[in-house]
Formats: sequence, C-alpha cells, structure tokens
Amino acid sequence: MTLEEKLAQIVGFWEKADGEAVAPLQGEFTHDVGLAEAMRHGLGHLTRVYGTRPVEPVERAQWLWEKQRSLVRDTRLGIPAIVHEECLTGLSAWRAATFPTPLAWGAAFDPDLVAEMGAVIGDSMRVLGVHQGLAPVLDVIRDPRWGRVDECISEDPYVVGTLGTSYVRGLQSMGVHATLKHFVGYSGSQSGRNFAPVHAGPREVEDVLLVPFEMALLDGGARSVMHSYAEIDGVPVAADPALLTGVLRDRWGFDGAVVADYFGVAFLHLLHSVAADLGEAAGLALAAGVDIELPTGDAYLAPLAEAVRAGRVDEALVDRAVLRALEQKEELGLLDATFDDEPPTAVDLDSPEHRKIAARLAEESLVLLANDGTLPLASPARVAVIGPNADRVEALFGCYSFLNHVLAHHPGAEVGIEIQTVADAIATELPGAEIIGARGCAVDDDDRSGFAAATSAAATAEVAVVVVGDHAALFGRGTVGEGCDRDDLELPGVQRELVEAVLATGTPVVLVLLTGRPYAIDWALDRCSAVVQAFFPGEEGAPAIAGVLSGRVNPSGRLPVSMPRSAGAQPYTYLHPQLGGNGDVTNLRTTPALPFGHGLSYTTFARSELQAPAQSPTGSPIEASVRVANTGDRAGEDVVQLYARDVIGSVTRPVAQLVGYQRVRLEPGESVVVSFSVPPARLAFANRDLDRVVEPGELELWVGPSCAERETEARTTLTGPVHRVDVNSERWTSVSVR
Amino acid sequence: MTLEEKLAQIVGFWEKADGEAVAPLQGEFTHDVGLAEAMRHGLGHLTRVYGTRPVEPVERAQWLWEKQRSLVRDTRLGIPAIVHEECLTGLSAWRAATFPTPLAWGAAFDPDLVAEMGAVIGDSMRVLGVHQGLAPVLDVIRDPRWGRVDECISEDPYVVGTLGTSYVRGLQSMGVHATLKHFVGYSGSQSGRNFAPVHAGPREVEDVLLVPFEMALLDGGARSVMHSYAEIDGVPVAADPALLTGVLRDRWGFDGAVVADYFGVAFLHLLHSVAADLGEAAGLALAAGVDIELPTGDAYLAPLAEAVRAGRVDEALVDRAVLRALEQKEELGLLDATFDDEPPTAVDLDSPEHRKIAARLAEESLVLLANDGTLPLASPARVAVIGPNADRVEALFGCYSFLNHVLAHHPGAEVGIEIQTVADAIATELPGAEIIGARGCAVDDDDRSGFAAATSAAATAEVAVVVVGDHAALFGRGTVGEGCDRDDLELPGVQRELVEAVLATGTPVVLVLLTGRPYAIDWALDRCSAVVQAFFPGEEGAPAIAGVLSGRVNPSGRLPVSMPRSAGAQPYTYLHPQLGGNGDVTNLRTTPALPFGHGLSYTTFARSELQAPAQSPTGSPIEASVRVANTGDRAGEDVVQLYARDVIGSVTRPVAQLVGYQRVRLEPGESVVVSFSVPPARLAFANRDLDRVVEPGELELWVGPSCAERETEARTTLTGPVHRVDVNSERWTSVSVR
Repeated sequence: MTLEEKLAQIVGFWEKADGEAVAPLQGEFTHDVGLAEAMRHGLGHLTRVYGTRPVEPVERAQWLWEKQRSLVRDTRLGIPAIVHEECLTGLSAWRAATFPTPLAWGAAFDPDLVAEMGAVIGDSMRVLGVHQGLAPVLDVIRDPRWGRVDECISEDPYVVGTLGTSYVRGLQSMGVHATLKHFVGYSGSQSGRNFAPVHAGPREVEDVLLVPFEMALLDGGARSVMHSYAEIDGVPVAADPALLTGVLRDRWGFDGAVVADYFGVAFLHLLHSVAADLGEAAGLALAAGVDIELPTGDAYLAPLAEAVRAGRVDEALVDRAVLRALEQKEELGLLDATFDDEPPTAVDLDSPEHRKIAARLAEESLVLLANDGTLPLASPARVAVIGPNADRVEALFGCYSFLNHVLAHHPGAEVGIEIQTVADAIATELPGAEIIGARGCAVDDDDRSGFAAATSAAATAEVAVVVVGDHAALFGRGTVGEGCDRDDLELPGVQRELVEAVLATGTPVVLVLLTGRPYAIDWALDRCSAVVQAFFPGEEGAPAIAGVLSGRVNPSGRLPVSMPRSAGAQPYTYLHPQLGGNGDVTNLRTTPALPFGHGLSYTTFARSELQAPAQSPTGSPIEASVRVANTGDRAGEDVVQLYARDVIGSVTRPVAQLVGYQRVRLEPGESVVVSFSVPPARLAFANRDLDRVVEPGELELWVGPSCAERETEARTTLTGPVHRVDVNSERWTSVSVR
Repeated sequence: MTLEEKLAQIVGFWEKADGEAVAPLQGEFTHDVGLAEAMRHGLGHLTRVYGTRPVEPVERAQWLWEKQRSLVRDTRLGIPAIVHEECLTGLSAWRAATFPTPLAWGAAFDPDLVAEMGAVIGDSMRVLGVHQGLAPVLDVIRDPRWGRVDECISEDPYVVGTLGTSYVRGLQSMGVHATLKHFVGYSGSQSGRNFAPVHAGPREVEDVLLVPFEMALLDGGARSVMHSYAEIDGVPVAADPALLTGVLRDRWGFDGAVVADYFGVAFLHLLHSVAADLGEAAGLALAAGVDIELPTGDAYLAPLAEAVRAGRVDEALVDRAVLRALEQKEELGLLDATFDDEPPTAVDLDSPEHRKIAARLAEESLVLLANDGTLPLASPARVAVIGPNADRVEALFGCYSFLNHVLAHHPGAEVGIEIQTVADAIATELPGAEIIGARGCAVDDDDRSGFAAATSAAATAEVAVVVVGDHAALFGRGTVGEGCDRDDLELPGVQRELVEAVLATGTPVVLVLLTGRPYAIDWALDRCSAVVQAFFPGEEGAPAIAGVLSGRVNPSGRLPVSMPRSAGAQPYTYLHPQLGGNGDVTNLRTTPALPFGHGLSYTTFARSELQAPAQSPTGSPIEASVRVANTGDRAGEDVVQLYARDVIGSVTRPVAQLVGYQRVRLEPGESVVVSFSVPPARLAFANRDLDRVVEPGELELWVGPSCAERETEARTTLTGPVHRVDVNSERWTSVSVR
C-alpha cells in the first residue's frame, strides 16, 4: 500500500451534501474536496449519510451502495468503507424509531430491555448498510450542569456498565459494531462546562470512570472505542498512551479500532495546545492509540503524510493503525464485499416491534417523585394541560435524536414517524375529560404573556397538568444537549414562575418534568400534588406519561441520578465518602433534594429479611437475599436495590454503593425472595498502589427504597487476605428471583 | 525515656480552663484530665493559652511561666513544652494588634511589608513565651465557596508563595517558628465544602498546590508544617507518606516537625474511616510523618501506647517523632531553659509600630473595583453611611482574629485595642460633612425593616456609602470563616436588596465590600458610582477605607482572586488552560466579573516597551523589562504584573500565569523601568513523567492592568533541551526598578 492508500484507510469522510449544520470549530477546516476526490485512494469511514434532512432511507441506501461499489471497483485496493452513524436513541435517520434517552434507560433499571432495544436498532442499521454505531455513551454522570448528561445513563458506574453492556450486546448481535464513548473522563469537566479540564486523580478514574468501559469491553465485547475530548490533570486523553494503549489494549486486551471523536485529533493542536501543528497532533494521537481520525482526515491526511515523510512520525505507527482498520473491515466482511447485491427497496425502521420496545422502556422509565394521592387521576371532567413541553414533539427527545435534528434545521418538517405530544396523549387517555390547553411560556425565554391564559385554564379545571423542562439540541441551541451547559439548575426560562402561578390558582398541580438532566425542583415537591420525572422518553413517551396520569401504567422508574439542591452545591455524587456528605465540619447540607434510587409507585413495597453470611472470603462472591412484598392493592414493579458500604478501607470508601439491582413485578400481596451473588469485582477499588483489590473487614449491606434508606440491613465480615481482582473476574452481580 | 515519656513529647494539651467553645467533633473526646495530670510525664506542646476571654497578656505569661517551671522542676526529664498559638492576623491574644487578613496581603502585593508584619507579630509572641505560630495558611484558593478563603492569600500560587515566605521570614526572624498549613490540598475540596474530598491529580498538586509550601520551606526556611485534613483522590494527607515524607523530607530536605491539624489524627478513624480505631489512626499518621498530635493526645497517648505494646506499631516510629520533637525544642533553646527568669510585667502588643504597619498594609490592600469619578468624594455636606458592616468592629476582622473570638463568646466585651468602625472613620475623615447613619439590615438575616430608614437617609444625602459584606466566625457561626461555606455567592442575607433599595433613591452609591471572599457582585459594578473591595483590613482598616473615600489614600490594591460570576460557575481559576475559558464548545461564558490583578487608581498608569530576548535558554532566567508611567495628575502606586503563556506544552498549560510583580510608587509624570529576572522554576511544570521541567518553545509575555489585558507584549523562544528544575533552583523572580 502506498502511504496515501494507508492514510485513506484511517480517516473518514463526512458527507455534508445536504447542508448539514457544522459543528463548532468545523469552520477551522477547509475540506472543499468532494467525496469522489476523498475516495481516490480508498476510504476508511463514510459518515453522516443521513444528515439532518428528511430523506427516504432507501434512497440513501441506494446512494450508499453506489459509493461502496465505486470504492470496490474504482480504487486500486477495492476496499469498501465502514459506514458509521449516530444511534444513541435509535438510528439517526428519517422514519427510524426514536427510543428513550440513556437517562431513561438508567431510570428503568432493565438491562434485558435495553438489549432488546439495541438489537432492533442494530437490525435497522445492518439492513441499511451501516456497520458501526457511535453509541453507547458510558460517561458516568459527575455534574448535572453538563449539557451532555442527557446522553448519559446514570451517576452510578455499575448501572452505566450493566445497561451500556446490554446495549452493546443487543446492537452487536445484529453484526453492527458498537463504539464506546467517550473513553474517558469527559463527564468530569470543571463546573460541568463542556470540554473543560477534568480534575481527577487516577483512583477516581479507576474506580468510577473506567468501570463501565471495562464491563462493556470485557463482558459486552464492544468492537470499537472513541477517545474522549477531555484533558485529565493536564493530559488530553487523545494523546495519552497510558489510557488508550496501556489500559485499553495491554490491560483489557482490546483488539478493535479506536476512533477519534470528531475533530479530536486536530483539537490537540487547536484547543489543548499540546501539539504545534496538525502533523504533530497526528503523531501524538497515533502514538497514543487513536487509529482512525473522524470525521475527516484533518490531521491524518496531508499533515501526517508530511510528518511521516519528514521522519517526524514513524510510519510503523501508521501501519499499526491501518492494520487495525483493515482487521475491523475483515471482521465486518468488508474485505470480501462486492456490493453487487441490491440495497433494500423497502424498510420499516419503526415497526410495531420497535414501538412496543419503545413503549415498554418509556413506561418503565417514568419516575414518580412525589404524590399526595392525586395520581392516578380519578376520572376528572376538566383537565388543564399547561406548559411549553405539553404540545411539542421535540420535548420527548434528546439532543442526538434525528427528529430534533430535522426540526432544528427544517422547522415544520414532517418528522417521518408517528408521535403524540403529551397533550394529545392525555386527550386520548382521558376520553371523558375536557382538555384545556395553554402553553403559558416557552422553554427558555422570559415572555410571561401566556401566564394569564394558563392560570385561567387552570382555575376552571379540576386538575392542572403542567409539563415543563428542556429543549434538547446541539451546540448551544438548546437548554440541554451537547454544548448546552448551565451554571444554574433552576428550570430554564420562566417555567418555575409559570408553575408557581398555576399553583397560586389553588387547582391541584401535577408537574411533569420532561428534561435531559435533573433540575433543582425541591420547591415543587411539597407544593405540587404530584411530580413525574420523565427523562426524554422517546416516540412512545407521551402515551406512557398519560398512562401514568390515568393509572393505566403503574410508575416504576427509579432515579438514576440524585436530584440536586442547587447548582452551587455541585459537583455532588451519592457515591461519596463520609466527608462528601453532611457533617459538623461545614454548615452546608449536602443532602440532595431526592436521593439516587428514589421512585414511588401506586402500590407499596416492603423489603425485609436481608440475609448475608456473617463471614465471606474476600475472593468469593457474597450471597445475599432479601424478601420483597407488594403490600398494596395493585400490581406493580419494584427495583430492588442492594447497597453496600465498606466500613474501613486503606483509602476512603463511599458511604453507599449500589452492588446489585433487579426489577421485579409483583401482584398485590405477592412476595418473592431476590438473591444476589455479588462478585469481588463489585466491591473492589484501587488501593494505595492503584491495584484493584477487595480488603478484609466489615461490610454493611442494605436494601431500601433508595440509597438513603436502610429498610433491611445485614453485616458481613470479609475474611482472608487482600484479594486482587483481575480482568478475568466476574463483574456482574447475578440475581435470581423465586 | 519510658514509652509514656516519649508519647508525652509528641502530643499537646489544650488548656480550656476559660470555657472556650469547642471545635466540631471535639465532643467526641473525653479528656477530663487536667493540665497537671497531662504534664506528669512531660508535655510536647501547650496550646491556646490566650483562649477567647479578655485576660491581660502579662497575667497569662505569669501562668505560662509557672507551667513551664513545673515541667522543668517536677517531671523526671525536666523538658518544657513548646507553646503554640494562632497568629494568622496577629497573635491571638487580648490587646494584641490585629492586622489585615491574608486576602488583603494578597491584594497589597507587597512582600516586604508582610515580612515587617510577621516580625512584629513574632516579637510579641517571643516576649510572651510563645514559640510556635500556627501560620501562615498557604492553601491556594481554588473555590470561593469555601469558608476558609478568608485565611488564604490568593488564587495564584506564586503570590501565595512569595507573601507566605515573607511572613515566615518575618515571624522566624524573632525566633518564633512558623507553621505552614495546610499541607496540602485543603482548598481544593469538592464544591467548596470544608473537608470535602479533593478531586485533583498529581500534576495539579505539583504545579499549583505544592508551590507555596516549597517556597516557604526552601526559601523561607519554615520550621514546622501542619498536615491538611484533606483527602486527595481517596488518600487522607495525614496518612500519606508520599506527601508527608516523600515530598517534604526526601525531596525538599525538611528536617523540622510536622504537627497535626487539630484532631486530624483521630479524624483518620472518625471521618475518613481509613483506620478502625484510634490506635490504628496513630500508627498510620506516625508512619506517614505526622510527628506531633494536636491539640491533645487523643490517638498518640493511650491508643498508641497500646498499639506499640501489642506490636501493631513499631516503636521506632515513635522514636523518630520524639527525636524530631526534641530537636525542635533544642533549636528553640528549650532543652536548656529553666524559666528561672521572670515573665514580662508590661508589654505593648499594639504599639505605634504595629499600628503603622497595620495601616500601611490596610491602605495598600484596598481595591477600587469601579469608579465613575464619584471617588474621591468632593467635600460632600451630607453623607449617608448605610449597611450592616458600617458600624461593627467585627466587620474588619477575619475568622481567626482574637477580637472576633472574644466578641463571639463575650458579646459586648471590651476589645482591648482601639478600633474605629467605618462609620466612625468616615466622620473623622470628613469633619465638614454631616453623617447620617442607618444600618438597613443585618449581615445575614431576612429582616428588611431597616430599609426605610436607610433609604430616607440616602435620599437626603449627596452620596450614600453602603458598607456590606461578611461576618467572619468559626464553625458555622458566620457567613465566612472555618466551617462557614456557601452554595451561593450572592451577598449574604438581604444585603443586595438593601443596596438596590438605596440605588433606587437616585443618590449616588459608593459600595464598600468588607468580605472574606470574593462575591458575585457584577450587578453592582455599573449601577453603583464606585465599588471598593476590602478584604477584612484589620484594626486600621476603617481609617484606610475612609482615606480612600476622601482621597487621602490613593487606592493601589489589586485583586488576588477573580471576582466570580456565580456560585454555579465554580470552580474557576484564572490559571486555566484554553478549555477552562470561553470557547465555541460550550454556551457558558466563564469570564469572571472582574479578572485577577484588576484594581483602579485615582491616577492612571501606562505600561509600555516590554522587552524580552528573542531567544532564551530553557535553563536560564528570562530577563524582561517594562516601562511604567504615571500618566495622571497625582502620585500613586501601581502593581506591575508580568504574565506569561507557554504556548505549546507536552501537557496543557495555563493561558496566563503571573511570573513576576512589583509595587512601584510614581509621582505624576514619572516613569520607571521595571526589570524582571524570571527564573526557570517560575515557568516549570510537571511534564508527563511528573518531572518539573521547562520545555523549549514559544513563550508569550505581557504586562497589563490585570491578567486579562495585554497592554504591552513580547515573545521569547525558549531554546535548548528540556531543562529539569531541581530544589536548588532560584524560585523568586528578582525585580529591580530604575
């Protein structure tokens, strides 16, 4: 292979023919070459085929087949490109199903269902000729001010790890490669600002941030990893061999391809200033272990070619990356592909099966934060449906949904799939009720002119459903999403004032939060009759919400994040050592407004009889069981949460850590025993030497309705020597229900 | 020595006979033994002699001599105790001078004056038989939400290092040992909460947090160090041999004694949970390098004795600490001391010399943040003096001042030294003006009943001076100070509302901030006619403020910290890499309300002709010079600030870093050339291997009125190989003025 042929295999090309909006700093680059020119020596990746415009997927597939045939027939080596696409909440294409956002997966605590979702997403991609999906996002939430929280699953690394692994398994079961992102540290940025420096030591990286990646690679077998834009303690990950090679390949044995986050290689020069030019940036990234530059070859084409020819970058590094790129193509069957077959002429990307999974996941993800008995609604005759998120379909979707892309760039466009707004769904759900709608205000401006209509609607109704929250978008255009960070955690705009104005009418208020991050809404918990938290629940989200309001759906979501008290109290995590919580040494209370794991139901559950051995060897799983009973009068689902505290450690340990969980459905009066086998890896942590170990000593275990309440508890003494956990260990807590 | 005699030498005793309030968690300990019993086997340290009650210092000295005589005469070994006291803003004793707080030293940018202050403080201590002062605080400010910011000097490590070193030199020139605290990391606590976990990697520790300690030890020769309560990335410093022995002794060659922060050894068990009991805590701390437990032997007496006797702690570790303790006593002359001499019968702890230094430092520390020309006041006939900090002497002092201790515990007590309130001083300063006083509100409650009187006072006046800010106190009793953290950065209570009510009268408002932290007051900068920032300026602070208002004093302080935009934008530091600032990748602006280094004058200055060599070897100082001219019509002092940016680094580098500064006084029309010799250590940073190096490449240099403005700039190429900086290097930028 010539150097040009090699470099062509380790870069992508972003087809922007349909006028897609540029990402920040994309203007820095001047790739005026067309796709034909870019394909002359072959092409590593072809990307963003679906753009942001409503285009029939089969038309795009036709176009894609043509490009692949051209690569096969018109280039010397005849190797097709890997086609990658975004697919976080479903394939990012027109007419494709759009599922709940990762925060909603977190709230549902249902790995099997996430795997089912991953499989149907993967199936759609495979049919359309897409080989690699840029998902899941495995960043552990560290600060709700960060805009990309709506792409993340949870503040608990085990929840992120189990659900992320399930997504990978589902997607890859269809022959599509998953891409774990963003490896690693991105979510820890200073004050929650996108790309800001990460202040974290190696132990925090090891114990919190790496955990989900390790699980999704070693348990899920993920075939690709994307580096993170982050700089951790001064070292940009894209230029860090210790992480991209040391951890990923030497320790975990990863043999897939590492792709760059878009423009991430160039950012080593432009934003991190650790490289004097793009050629040096290419050399640093290549040496660290970034194999493929995306979206285009800003650094890996001409600048890298020049650096190699000048002897500043060893061509062996290029060869290493090319080999990995070609191995991935071989694995995908691309080295033998001819594309002589015909692309699909009809596809259903939003079949009844998609809708069913989307509906189940949406229903399981809704978290009833507070309820004075107003919910479920008792056949009201008049319902006011108020708020900026009541009548907008965009309000149901995260920042990486194709639908919000389309509507951001083509307002009023047909969205290509059938979607009810919350207001529509309530009307459908309550056919006997008169629905009075009033928007009240927009998501994020200061126009209060609609308040009067909203309060008069509320005043004449039996109950007011007020639907507020976020508008998710990219690059500063929304209230949440990539580049949409916040330095306060109040509801955006005048939405809190709207809620308070409606409350002042005296009509009971059911507050529905459609958001991409947890907001500081403690003021609402007592004053509203009920509060429902929906983390962008997707195409079936509105009927799910209406179902919770009517009682058709018994809410069973649990908070995958703490509900914050204020922006000024951030960062906060429930996984804190004692001194990260309340105490006599500071006047500040740190207790969040609602704890991780909280969520109400229309029935009640009792957890009792937590059993654990008095002693258990450090190197063996801890076998614990608990009885869970439905003590109310209707069927419901509980998420049984097993927490542990390692009382004394050689380093400080969190006061609570989720070590196992299980969703169980119980009929009224029914009880089951849930048994957990907690492997040493779940209790392990980086000791003084940064070895991952389980230490002997006391372990407190408990089960309760959230991390904060010990409804039933037990105590186990871990015995024997310090146990070192290696990569061959079991990482999942296995659970059985009987 | 018996084991009991050894242990007695490595613990202190806190004499609390005068009913001093207990610190948090002190209640955990049950030291009912009296001093006599505690002295039976000897005593390492005797502490808090001066307590919180107004007692004549000579009476206390008499008592102290008696105790020392008893140790000499009545114990087998006859070794007196080291007496230590707090002395951050002056000896913590009744009738002793109380100087400005460290933030005010930072604002004054005057190392020589801080050394003078240190010397007179040391002199007072020596006369009274105190051997060791628990100051200075060298924690680099990382988050203004933290309550102990009022004990810190600056957010710039070089400013902290130079002023801290100067304090040490002054204090120790009188034979009193300084104690550097808190080694290390305390200021980086999560979300600014006292004691909360520190998220920092080793590079941040090295490049920011350790710098001032290194300077004060290696340049200042400080004789004692206090460990910090912090846990950094899971490891409590009190149990970290890598810091307390590796850095401090092995690398820096420190041979003095490390003392515990109060209760810090016990906290390893009680708060950090890295020790199962007090004996294990003692063993961990001793092994790490904590030689002396303070204030009492909670862990180092009975629990350690038991652990040693049971073989769980090696007695050699005890011997190592005892040897250090005795070496310190030898150095202080205590091994030969008999106390046969008589204690002083008359002392003046607040002499004219004290007052003069206090006045100069206060004057130099006042920062004129904004001024539309209203200041200096032009002989007004009627001045309204409003606000909760106008008429309270406590408003002038930090949380570790003896005066605020006395008044907190004995409200209405005589304070023992002569102090004017700001209102008094304005009346004195403006003898021709009618002064109308109105408090308006308290510092920190929601009572607005005084607003009416305040606004009517303002309405009839030519100008309203509104004096707002903090009340400094310990352990949650104030708005700033130890244990008084905040999750917002608005002025406490209803003070902002008071200011806005006065502004609404239309009378020009001069806002005076008497605070212990920078607050988010950007709303006031345009709306008030002038804003003066005073960081607790001490006993001569009120005349200094009045002098600035009248024009007798030309303000010359500069911000040692960024003025924040909001609590939700924290943490923030001006020392950020590019991605810690504004950019296209986040919607959030990070620009602080006012930048580090900002401060106005009644004259104007022009900085020009910055000269630096085109090339300079990495291992040599950079010689730079700049012309500074007084371009206004009255004499004034400028703080010339030289900043640098290392454009490309092997790790990310700050976009601005102060590398030299000099206060200069200039007559109208006068100009001088200020020459800086910036040593390699100032430009050095921890590279990928955590070696402290200077790398070849481009360096931008500039001088301006703050870190944010490049009034004159130059560019130097650092040439030659990577230069490794060792502990023998010069650390100070030497400056000459001609």
